Amino acid sequence: MIVVFTGGTGGAKFVEGLQRAVPGDQLTCIVNTGDDFKWWGLHISPDLDSITYALAGRLSPERGWGVRDDTFFCLQTMRELGEPSWFQVGDRDLAIHLARSRMLAEGKTLSEATAAITEKLGVNARILPMTDSPVETRVETPDGEFNFQEYFVKRRHQDQVKSVRFDGAAKAQPAPGVVDAIHSAHAVILAPSNPITSIGPILAVPGIREALRAAPADVLAISPIVANSAVSGPAGALMAAQGYCVSIAGVAQVYADFLDILVVDQRDADAARELNRPGLRVHCEDTIMRTLDDKARLAQTVLALAYAHHGSASDRS
Amino acid sequence: MIVVFTGGTGGAKFVEGLQRAVPGDQLTCIVNTGDDFKWWGLHISPDLDSITYALAGRLSPERGWGVRDDTFFCLQTMRELGEPSWFQVGDRDLAIHLARSRMLAEGKTLSEATAAITEKLGVNARILPMTDSPVETRVETPDGEFNFQEYFVKRRHQDQVKSVRFDGAAKAQPAPGVVDAIHSAHAVILAPSNPITSIGPILAVPGIREALRAAPADVLAISPIVANSAVSGPAGALMAAQGYCVSIAGVAQVYADFLDILVVDQRDADAARELNRPGLRVHCEDTIMRTLDDKARLAQTVLALAYAHHGSASDRS
Repeated sequence: MIVVFTGGTGGAKFVEGLQRAVPGDQLTCIVNTGDDFKWWGLHISPDLDSITYALAGRLSPERGWGVRDDTFFCLQTMRELGEPSWFQVGDRDLAIHLARSRMLAEGKTLSEATAAITEKLGVNARILPMTDSPVETRVETPDGEFNFQEYFVKRRHQDQVKSVRFDGAAKAQPAPGVVDAIHSAHAVILAPSNPITSIGPILAVPGIREALRAAPADVLAISPIVANSAVSGPAGALMAAQGYCVSIAGVAQVYADFLDILVVDQRDADAARELNRPGLRVHCEDTIMRTLDDKARLAQTVLALAYAHHGSASDRS
Repeated sequence: MIVVFTGGTGGAKFVEGLQRAVPGDQLTCIVNTGDDFKWWGLHISPDLDSITYALAGRLSPERGWGVRDDTFFCLQTMRELGEPSWFQVGDRDLAIHLARSRMLAEGKTLSEATAAITEKLGVNARILPMTDSPVETRVETPDGEFNFQEYFVKRRHQDQVKSVRFDGAAKAQPAPGVVDAIHSAHAVILAPSNPITSIGPILAVPGIREALRAAPADVLAISPIVANSAVSGPAGALMAAQGYCVSIAGVAQVYADFLDILVVDQRDADAARELNRPGLRVHCEDTIMRTLDDKARLAQTVLALAYAHHGSASDRS
């Protein structure tokens, strides 16, 4: 069983690759829900949706979020009605939000709603929210504090970031299956997602970081930072705001207490040689995912590293 | 000021005609909300929507409900998700349900939500729900009791109808403005809507029937029954179930306590001559509305009758 921690567009791309490299029934995705928010009265889980669409073969390749070939007629009418329209929900995409919101209103957990939706969409990998409890990533800026979608989409991540916190995380519990999946995994992979706001909320749920530290399998991460800047999005600014270097060393530091293998881009070969952390192995690969073949190749490479070390660890035992 | 009681597709057609015959700021529509129900977790008001779309120039002329040229991609995806799909909500149509549901969840009344929506859509006539209280039309059949949309859409009005009741009506109050509009109207027109399930719920709200009886202006109705059957839909079956003849005499009887003028179709000329009710004037016209010109012509005819009688009533005073 392969377990992947994921969130954001980088995470969705990597999961699309994993899907071509791992049979669905051997893949568990543990997904950030710190971006969840209310929109038009509905419960939106942007990262669960992206991973669901990725694994259902429905993710828009152009946008990296939402449904392939979707239309936006409802959104257009909402704009005419004077309703907020900065978060783009497509007509086909709306269905998942309506269905999930109805299930939550009827008392189902987010895990149960996710399982029901993914089953209907023919996803045979397992998609687990990090928690069924409400956790909200809050970004503090000079203009005030915003939830992640307000910061990222509405304000186009142009604000200076003073700090990030995960409201509700202290009282949250890992969703059913999350800790067990980590314990029984052959490899745990942290996708090249934003370490602060995509992986960070998952790690902030009490019990998950501890499970990674105790995981029998290797924990691998693919660096979303290449040549000292983020491949996409505000990961650099957010890492800096939280006091980390915007570099592969910074990524290694965020994950320092549990990381076994860090996969970095070829362009960081020099930095990789300088990165000496006891117990951390660093591998240089081509990590940029432009095509579906790139995604599958990166997934295969990372899996090969995981299996090689898993094998050698077993040999030693 | 012209006041029209309306519901259903016949009502929407007639209101489309009225819009061409009366300046918007002189038209108040009092609309059935007995069909309102929850769908996909949203509050749907089918008759308020049809009248809103009619007056905004957005009503689908082919279907007689929903938005012109709408698409159904969300519905299609809802079906894939295993969600109920028998009630057809278009992508553009969804926006009005989302916006209204959000406003109601925030504590606005149905009147306030309706006013906000119609203003945004450029409707200058006034659209009033019959009440802001929950009233649900319940149709009793040999297979059990159903709400109106279940009976009408899901079960395609094929059930034998034993009775109809308006759950909640006894405790309902007319929405703000309804009784005043009736009292100050130059004419009150009952659209050629189903007398039992479109006009019936409005009349069941305590105070509205009394206001019609006391109205200084003439109350006119256009018969939805032509040649002893309904122009469309289950009006005949529902009238019979409630103990009325399926005829213009039956329509006159439903409205007996307040009706001044009944407009019937030419085909009922013979029946009209036999209809002798003290104080009731009967006019034969061509009442079938196929084109927008038909609708406007019928509206103009009915208005002319109202004004003629209003004038003669004034002469007498």
